[in-house]
Amino acid sequence: MEKRDQEKHRERQQRLKAKVDAKVAAASEERGVLLVLTGNGKGKSTAGFGTVLRAVGHGKRCAVAQFIKGQWECGERNILTELGVPFYVMDTGFTWDTQDRAADTAAAEAVWAQIRRALADPAVDLVLLDELTYMLSYHYLDVEAVCDAIAARPPHQHVVITGRACHRRLLEMADTVSEITPVKHAFEAGIKAQAGLDW
Amino acid sequence: MEKRDQEKHRERQQRLKAKVDAKVAAASEERGVLLVLTGNGKGKSTAGFGTVLRAVGHGKRCAVAQFIKGQWECGERNILTELGVPFYVMDTGFTWDTQDRAADTAAAEAVWAQIRRALADPAVDLVLLDELTYMLSYHYLDVEAVCDAIAARPPHQHVVITGRACHRRLLEMADTVSEITPVKHAFEAGIKAQAGLDW
Repeated sequence: MEKRDQEKHRERQQRLKAKVDAKVAAASEERGVLLVLTGNGKGKSTAGFGTVLRAVGHGKRCAVAQFIKGQWECGERNILTELGVPFYVMDTGFTWDTQDRAADTAAAEAVWAQIRRALADPAVDLVLLDELTYMLSYHYLDVEAVCDAIAARPPHQHVVITGRACHRRLLEMADTVSEITPVKHAFEAGIKAQAGLDW
Repeated sequence: MEKRDQEKHRERQQRLKAKVDAKVAAASEERGVLLVLTGNGKGKSTAGFGTVLRAVGHGKRCAVAQFIKGQWECGERNILTELGVPFYVMDTGFTWDTQDRAADTAAAEAVWAQIRRALADPAVDLVLLDELTYMLSYHYLDVEAVCDAIAARPPHQHVVITGRACHRRLLEMADTVSEITPVKHAFEAGIKAQAGLDW
Protein backbone atom coordinates (compact mmCIF):
# COMPACT_ATOMS: atom_id res chain seq x y z
CA MET A 1 0.00 0.00 0.00
CA GLU A 2 1.17 3.53 -0.73
CA LYS A 3 2.41 5.70 2.06
CA ARG A 4 -0.13 8.42 1.16
CA ASP A 5 -3.06 6.01 1.43
CA GLN A 6 -1.80 4.90 4.80
CA GLU A 7 -1.56 8.55 5.92
CA LYS A 8 -5.07 9.39 4.66
CA HIS A 9 -6.53 6.33 6.38
CA ARG A 10 -4.84 7.29 9.62
CA GLU A 11 -6.18 10.86 9.46
CA ARG A 12 -9.72 9.66 8.70
CA GLN A 13 -9.60 7.22 11.59
CA GLN A 14 -8.25 9.89 13.95
CA ARG A 15 -11.14 12.21 13.09
CA LEU A 16 -13.59 9.34 13.66
CA LYS A 17 -11.92 8.47 16.95
CA ALA A 18 -12.09 12.11 18.14
CA LYS A 19 -15.82 12.21 17.35
CA VAL A 20 -16.52 8.92 19.11
CA ASP A 21 -14.36 9.87 22.11
CA ALA A 22 -16.32 13.11 22.53
CA LYS A 23 -19.62 11.23 22.43
CA VAL A 24 -18.38 8.63 24.91
CA ALA A 25 -17.27 11.41 27.29
CA ALA A 26 -20.67 13.09 27.02
CA ALA A 27 -22.53 9.85 27.78
CA SER A 28 -21.92 9.60 31.51
CA GLU A 29 -25.26 8.46 32.94
CA GLU A 30 -25.57 4.85 34.02
CA ARG A 31 -29.06 3.45 34.58
CA GLY A 32 -31.53 0.87 33.39
CA VAL A 33 -32.46 1.24 29.75
CA LEU A 34 -35.75 0.41 28.05
CA LEU A 35 -34.86 -1.12 24.68
CA VAL A 36 -37.57 -1.76 22.07
CA LEU A 37 -36.86 -4.01 19.07
CA THR A 38 -39.72 -3.62 16.65
CA GLY A 39 -40.51 -3.69 12.91
CA ASN A 40 -41.41 -6.52 10.53
CA GLY A 41 -37.91 -7.88 9.87
CA LYS A 42 -36.13 -10.98 11.15
CA GLY A 43 -33.96 -10.45 14.23
CA LYS A 44 -36.14 -8.94 16.95
CA SER A 45 -36.42 -11.94 19.27
CA THR A 46 -32.92 -13.19 18.45
CA ALA A 47 -31.53 -9.77 19.44
CA GLY A 48 -33.64 -9.91 22.61
CA PHE A 49 -32.30 -13.35 23.54
CA GLY A 50 -28.81 -12.26 22.45
CA THR A 51 -29.04 -9.44 24.99
CA VAL A 52 -30.01 -11.93 27.71
CA LEU A 53 -27.03 -14.10 26.73
CA ARG A 54 -24.75 -11.06 26.90
CA ALA A 55 -26.06 -10.12 30.36
CA VAL A 56 -25.78 -13.68 31.70
CA GLY A 57 -22.22 -13.72 30.37
CA HIS A 58 -21.48 -10.82 32.70
CA GLY A 59 -23.06 -12.61 35.66
CA LYS A 60 -26.26 -10.53 35.55
CA ARG A 61 -29.60 -11.92 36.69
CA CYS A 62 -32.26 -12.07 33.98
CA ALA A 63 -35.89 -13.10 33.62
CA VAL A 64 -37.79 -13.84 30.41
CA ALA A 65 -41.48 -13.69 29.53
CA GLN A 66 -42.37 -15.37 26.25
CA PHE A 67 -45.71 -14.26 24.94
CA ILE A 68 -47.17 -15.95 21.83
CA LYS A 69 -44.53 -18.62 21.19
CA GLY A 70 -44.77 -20.31 24.58
CA GLN A 71 -45.43 -23.83 23.46
CA TRP A 72 -43.05 -23.87 20.54
CA GLU A 73 -39.71 -25.53 20.77
CA CYS A 74 -37.07 -22.88 21.22
CA GLY A 75 -33.30 -23.36 21.01
CA GLU A 76 -32.40 -20.38 23.16
CA ARG A 77 -34.73 -21.47 25.95
CA ASN A 78 -32.95 -24.85 26.12
CA ILE A 79 -29.65 -23.14 26.94
CA LEU A 80 -30.81 -20.17 29.00
CA THR A 81 -32.93 -22.21 31.41
CA GLU A 82 -29.90 -24.44 31.98
CA LEU A 83 -27.98 -21.28 32.84
CA GLY A 84 -30.60 -20.47 35.48
CA VAL A 85 -32.73 -17.88 33.67
CA PRO A 86 -36.41 -18.27 34.62
CA PHE A 87 -38.84 -18.39 31.69
CA TYR A 88 -42.52 -17.53 31.99
CA VAL A 89 -44.32 -18.79 28.89
CA MET A 90 -47.87 -18.59 27.55
CA ASP A 91 -49.61 -21.92 27.94
CA THR A 92 -51.48 -21.51 24.67
CA GLY A 93 -49.98 -21.80 21.20
CA PHE A 94 -50.03 -19.13 18.53
CA THR A 95 -53.21 -17.14 18.99
CA TRP A 96 -54.59 -18.18 15.64
CA ASP A 97 -54.35 -21.79 16.67
CA THR A 98 -56.60 -21.26 19.66
CA GLN A 99 -58.77 -18.47 18.25
CA ASP A 100 -60.25 -18.06 21.66
CA ARG A 101 -59.93 -14.53 22.91
CA ALA A 102 -60.95 -15.20 26.48
CA ALA A 103 -58.49 -18.09 26.91
CA ASP A 104 -55.68 -16.06 25.28
CA THR A 105 -56.36 -13.10 27.56
CA ALA A 106 -56.23 -15.33 30.64
CA ALA A 107 -52.97 -16.91 29.42
CA ALA A 108 -51.40 -13.49 28.77
CA GLU A 109 -52.48 -12.25 32.18
CA ALA A 110 -51.00 -15.32 33.87
CA VAL A 111 -47.59 -14.66 32.27
CA TRP A 112 -47.85 -10.96 33.10
CA ALA A 113 -48.60 -11.72 36.77
CA GLN A 114 -45.34 -13.71 36.94
CA ILE A 115 -43.05 -11.34 35.06
CA ARG A 116 -44.30 -8.22 36.84
CA ARG A 117 -42.77 -9.67 40.00
CA ALA A 118 -39.39 -9.68 38.19
CA LEU A 119 -40.05 -6.08 37.10
CA ALA A 120 -40.38 -5.13 40.77
CA ASP A 121 -37.39 -7.15 41.99
CA PRO A 122 -34.14 -5.18 42.55
CA ALA A 123 -32.18 -8.45 42.30
CA VAL A 124 -33.16 -8.76 38.62
CA ASP A 125 -30.86 -6.87 36.23
CA LEU A 126 -32.61 -7.47 32.92
CA VAL A 127 -36.13 -8.48 31.90
CA LEU A 128 -36.99 -9.65 28.38
CA LEU A 129 -40.63 -9.27 27.36
CA ASP A 130 -40.54 -11.27 24.13
CA GLU A 131 -43.46 -10.59 21.74
CA LEU A 132 -45.14 -8.34 24.28
CA THR A 133 -46.35 -5.93 21.59
CA TYR A 134 -49.04 -8.31 20.33
CA MET A 135 -50.54 -8.58 23.81
CA LEU A 136 -51.20 -4.85 23.65
CA SER A 137 -52.36 -4.82 19.99
CA TYR A 138 -54.89 -7.55 20.79
CA HIS A 139 -55.87 -5.86 24.09
CA TYR A 140 -54.97 -9.02 26.02
CA LEU A 141 -53.02 -6.81 28.44
CA ASP A 142 -53.75 -3.26 29.57
CA VAL A 143 -51.21 -0.78 28.22
CA GLU A 144 -51.46 1.43 31.33
CA ALA A 145 -50.68 -1.46 33.67
CA VAL A 146 -47.70 -2.47 31.53
CA CYS A 147 -46.31 1.08 31.29
CA ASP A 148 -46.76 1.64 35.03
CA ALA A 149 -44.88 -1.53 35.95
CA ILE A 150 -42.02 -0.66 33.59
CA ALA A 151 -41.83 2.93 34.82
CA ALA A 152 -41.77 1.80 38.47
CA ARG A 153 -39.03 -0.82 38.01
CA PRO A 154 -35.73 -0.62 39.94
CA PRO A 155 -33.57 2.18 38.43
CA HIS A 156 -30.71 -0.09 37.31
CA GLN A 157 -32.95 -2.69 35.62
CA HIS A 158 -32.89 -3.02 31.83
CA VAL A 159 -36.04 -4.04 29.98
CA VAL A 160 -36.12 -5.38 26.42
CA ILE A 161 -39.39 -5.53 24.48
CA THR A 162 -39.73 -7.29 21.12
CA GLY A 163 -42.53 -7.56 18.56
CA ARG A 164 -44.11 -5.85 15.58
CA ALA A 165 -46.13 -2.65 15.73
CA CYS A 166 -45.06 -1.55 19.20
CA HIS A 167 -47.55 0.63 21.07
CA ARG A 168 -46.82 4.38 20.83
CA ARG A 169 -46.76 4.69 24.64
CA LEU A 170 -43.88 2.21 24.92
CA LEU A 171 -41.98 3.87 22.07
CA GLU A 172 -42.25 7.19 23.90
CA MET A 173 -40.99 5.67 27.16
CA ALA A 174 -38.13 3.77 25.50
CA ASP A 175 -34.51 4.94 25.66
CA THR A 176 -33.47 2.96 22.60
CA VAL A 177 -35.72 1.90 19.73
CA SER A 178 -34.52 -0.17 16.78
CA GLU A 179 -36.81 -0.69 13.80
CA ILE A 180 -35.97 -3.93 12.01
CA THR A 181 -37.09 -3.79 8.39
CA PRO A 182 -37.20 -6.83 6.09
CA VAL A 183 -35.23 -5.96 2.94
CA LYS A 184 -35.81 -9.57 1.87
CA HIS A 185 -36.70 -12.83 3.59
CA ALA A 186 -35.81 -16.42 2.64
CA PHE A 187 -39.35 -17.52 3.54
CA GLU A 188 -40.77 -15.43 0.68
CA ALA A 189 -38.40 -17.27 -1.68
CA GLY A 190 -39.83 -20.65 -0.63
CA ILE A 191 -37.31 -21.60 2.05
CA LYS A 192 -38.99 -23.12 5.08
CA ALA A 193 -38.39 -22.13 8.69
CA GLN A 194 -35.58 -24.28 10.13
CA ALA A 195 -34.58 -25.36 13.63
CA GLY A 196 -31.52 -23.47 14.86
CA LEU A 197 -32.13 -20.52 12.53
CA ASP A 198 -35.79 -19.63 12.84
CA TRP A 199 -36.66 -21.00 16.26
CA MET B 1 -66.33 -9.39 26.37
CA GLU B 2 -69.29 -9.37 24.00
CA LYS B 3 -70.05 -12.45 21.99
CA ARG B 4 -69.88 -10.45 18.72
CA ASP B 5 -66.35 -9.21 19.49
CA GLN B 6 -65.30 -12.74 20.22
CA GLU B 7 -66.76 -13.89 16.89
CA LYS B 8 -65.08 -11.08 14.94
CA HIS B 9 -61.73 -11.82 16.59
CA ARG B 10 -62.08 -15.49 15.71
CA GLU B 11 -62.86 -14.72 12.07
CA ARG B 12 -59.93 -12.31 11.78
CA GLN B 13 -57.57 -14.87 13.29
CA GLN B 14 -58.90 -17.59 10.99
CA ARG B 15 -58.18 -15.46 7.91
CA LEU B 16 -54.70 -14.71 9.25
CA LYS B 17 -54.11 -18.39 9.96
CA ALA B 18 -55.23 -19.38 6.43
CA LYS B 19 -52.79 -16.86 4.93
CA VAL B 20 -49.90 -18.02 7.10
CA ASP B 21 -50.71 -21.71 6.49
CA ALA B 22 -50.61 -21.15 2.72
CA LYS B 23 -47.23 -19.43 2.97
CA VAL B 24 -45.85 -22.17 5.21
CA ALA B 25 -47.03 -24.81 2.72
CA ALA B 26 -45.36 -22.91 -0.16
CA ALA B 27 -42.06 -22.66 1.70
CA SER B 28 -40.82 -26.20 1.32
CA GLU B 29 -37.12 -25.83 0.54
CA GLU B 30 -34.66 -26.60 3.31
CA ARG B 31 -31.09 -25.37 2.88
CA GLY B 32 -28.44 -23.12 4.35
CA VAL B 33 -29.48 -19.48 4.49
CA LEU B 34 -27.30 -16.39 4.19
CA LEU B 35 -28.67 -13.88 6.69
CA VAL B 36 -27.41 -10.28 6.70
CA LEU B 37 -28.14 -8.00 9.68
CA THR B 38 -27.18 -4.47 8.67
CA GLY B 39 -28.15 -0.82 9.27
CA ASN B 40 -27.11 1.71 11.91
CA GLY B 41 -29.38 0.58 14.75
CA LYS B 42 -28.68 -1.38 17.93
CA GLY B 43 -29.26 -5.13 17.68
CA LYS B 44 -27.20 -6.45 14.77
CA SER B 45 -24.52 -8.32 16.74
CA THR B 46 -26.91 -9.30 19.52
CA ALA B 47 -29.22 -10.87 16.90
CA GLY B 48 -26.19 -12.60 15.39
CA PHE B 49 -25.14 -14.05 18.74
CA GLY B 50 -28.77 -14.80 19.54
CA THR B 51 -28.89 -16.94 16.39
CA VAL B 52 -25.78 -18.81 17.51
CA LEU B 53 -27.40 -19.40 20.92
CA ARG B 54 -30.55 -20.68 19.20
CA ALA B 55 -28.53 -23.07 17.01
CA VAL B 56 -26.43 -24.34 19.93
CA GLY B 57 -29.69 -24.92 21.80
CA HIS B 58 -30.66 -27.36 19.03
CA GLY B 59 -27.31 -29.13 19.24
CA LYS B 60 -25.94 -27.49 16.08
CA ARG B 61 -22.24 -26.85 15.60
CA CYS B 62 -21.32 -23.19 15.20
CA ALA B 63 -18.20 -21.09 14.62
CA VAL B 64 -17.77 -17.36 15.21
CA ALA B 65 -15.42 -14.79 13.70
CA GLN B 66 -15.33 -11.49 15.54
CA PHE B 67 -13.90 -8.71 13.45
CA ILE B 68 -13.30 -5.29 15.04
CA LYS B 69 -14.26 -5.99 18.65
CA GLY B 70 -11.78 -8.80 19.24
CA GLN B 71 -10.05 -7.47 22.30
CA TRP B 72 -13.12 -6.10 24.02
CA GLU B 73 -14.74 -7.92 26.85
CA CYS B 74 -17.85 -9.64 25.56
CA GLY B 75 -20.59 -11.28 27.64
CA GLU B 76 -21.79 -13.62 24.90
CA ARG B 77 -18.28 -14.90 24.23
CA ASN B 78 -17.91 -15.90 27.90
CA ILE B 79 -20.90 -18.24 27.63
CA LEU B 80 -20.59 -19.50 24.07
CA THR B 81 -16.94 -20.53 24.37
CA GLU B 82 -17.91 -22.50 27.49
CA LEU B 83 -20.55 -24.21 25.35
CA GLY B 84 -17.83 -25.24 22.92
CA VAL B 85 -18.25 -22.65 20.16
CA PRO B 86 -14.85 -21.68 18.69
CA PHE B 87 -14.21 -17.93 18.43
CA TYR B 88 -11.70 -16.40 16.04
CA VAL B 89 -11.07 -12.81 17.08
CA MET B 90 -9.04 -9.91 15.70
CA ASP B 91 -5.92 -9.40 17.78
CA THR B 92 -6.09 -5.63 17.39
CA GLY B 93 -8.59 -3.36 19.09
CA PHE B 94 -10.98 -1.00 17.37
CA THR B 95 -9.32 0.14 14.17
CA TRP B 96 -9.23 3.75 15.26
CA ASP B 97 -7.19 2.75 18.27
CA THR B 98 -4.49 1.21 16.13
CA GLN B 99 -4.78 3.50 13.09
CA ASP B 100 -2.39 1.24 11.31
CA ARG B 101 -3.84 -0.02 8.07
CA ALA B 102 -1.18 -2.63 7.39
CA ALA B 103 -1.47 -4.19 10.85
CA ASP B 104 -5.28 -4.15 10.67
CA THR B 105 -5.23 -5.82 7.26
CA ALA B 106 -2.93 -8.55 8.54
CA ALA B 107 -5.16 -9.07 11.60
CA ALA B 108 -8.30 -9.29 9.45
CA GLU B 109 -6.62 -11.76 7.12
CA ALA B 110 -5.53 -13.93 10.02
CA VAL B 111 -9.14 -14.20 11.28
CA TRP B 112 -10.38 -14.82 7.75
CA ALA B 113 -7.87 -17.65 7.24
CA GLN B 114 -9.31 -19.37 10.34
CA ILE B 115 -13.00 -18.86 9.68
CA ARG B 116 -12.81 -19.83 6.01
CA ARG B 117 -11.92 -23.33 7.20
CA ALA B 118 -15.24 -23.39 9.08
CA LEU B 119 -16.99 -22.15 5.91
CA ALA B 120 -15.61 -25.18 4.08
CA ASP B 121 -16.39 -27.70 6.83
CA PRO B 122 -19.58 -29.79 6.39
CA ALA B 123 -19.58 -30.50 10.14
CA VAL B 124 -20.27 -26.82 10.85
CA ASP B 125 -23.96 -25.88 10.74
CA LEU B 126 -23.75 -22.12 11.29
CA VAL B 127 -21.02 -19.51 10.90
CA LEU B 128 -21.31 -16.02 12.37
CA LEU B 129 -19.16 -13.34 10.70
CA ASP B 130 -19.64 -10.57 13.25
CA GLU B 131 -18.78 -7.06 11.97
CA LEU B 132 -17.49 -8.47 8.69
CA THR B 133 -18.91 -5.56 6.69
CA TYR B 134 -16.25 -3.10 7.92
CA MET B 135 -13.47 -5.42 6.70
CA LEU B 136 -14.86 -4.98 3.19
CA SER B 137 -15.57 -1.24 3.52
CA TYR B 138 -11.97 -0.68 4.62
CA HIS B 139 -10.63 -3.09 1.97
CA TYR B 140 -8.96 -5.18 4.66
CA LEU B 141 -10.47 -8.27 3.00
CA ASP B 142 -11.17 -8.92 -0.67
CA VAL B 143 -14.89 -9.00 -1.44
CA GLU B 144 -14.44 -11.59 -4.21
CA ALA B 145 -12.62 -13.99 -1.90
CA VAL B 146 -15.31 -13.58 0.77
CA CYS B 147 -18.20 -14.07 -1.68
CA ASP B 148 -16.53 -17.11 -3.24
CA ALA B 149 -16.02 -18.81 0.13
CA ILE B 150 -19.63 -18.16 1.15
CA ALA B 151 -21.00 -19.35 -2.20
CA ALA B 152 -18.93 -22.55 -2.03
CA ARG B 153 -19.93 -23.49 1.53
CA PRO B 154 -21.72 -26.78 2.33
CA PRO B 155 -25.37 -26.52 1.17
CA HIS B 156 -26.92 -26.94 4.64
CA GLN B 157 -24.68 -24.35 6.33
CA HIS B 158 -26.18 -21.07 7.53
CA VAL B 159 -24.07 -17.90 7.50
CA VAL B 160 -24.89 -14.76 9.47
CA ILE B 161 -23.15 -11.47 8.65
CA THR B 162 -23.47 -8.37 10.82
CA GLY B 163 -22.33 -4.76 10.47
CA ARG B 164 -23.23 -1.39 8.99
CA ALA B 165 -23.18 -0.56 5.30
CA CYS B 166 -23.06 -4.12 3.99
CA HIS B 167 -21.42 -4.55 0.56
CA ARG B 168 -23.90 -4.71 -2.33
CA ARG B 169 -22.49 -8.06 -3.47
CA LEU B 170 -23.34 -9.70 -0.14
CA LEU B 171 -26.81 -8.15 -0.10
CA GLU B 172 -27.44 -9.64 -3.55
CA MET B 173 -26.26 -13.08 -2.43
CA ALA B 174 -28.23 -13.01 0.83
CA ASP B 175 -31.48 -14.95 1.33
CA THR B 176 -32.62 -12.77 4.23
CA VAL B 177 -31.62 -9.15 4.85
CA SER B 178 -32.79 -7.16 7.85
CA GLU B 179 -32.04 -3.43 8.02
CA ILE B 180 -31.89 -2.26 11.64
CA THR B 181 -32.65 1.43 11.88
CA PRO B 182 -32.07 3.52 15.02
CA VAL B 183 -35.33 5.31 15.83
CA LYS B 184 -33.60 6.55 18.98
CA HIS B 185 -30.60 5.51 21.06
CA ALA B 186 -29.92 5.92 24.80
CA PHE B 187 -26.32 6.88 24.01
CA GLU B 188 -27.50 10.05 22.26
CA ALA B 189 -29.40 10.97 25.44
CA GLY B 190 -26.22 10.78 27.53
CA ILE B 191 -26.52 7.22 28.82
CA LYS B 192 -23.20 5.39 28.72
CA ALA B 193 -22.58 1.96 27.27
CA GLN B 194 -23.06 -0.66 30.01
CA ALA B 195 -21.79 -4.20 30.57
CA GLY B 196 -24.51 -6.76 29.94
CA LEU B 197 -26.48 -4.47 27.66
CA ASP B 198 -24.00 -2.96 25.22
CA TRP B 199 -21.19 -5.49 25.23
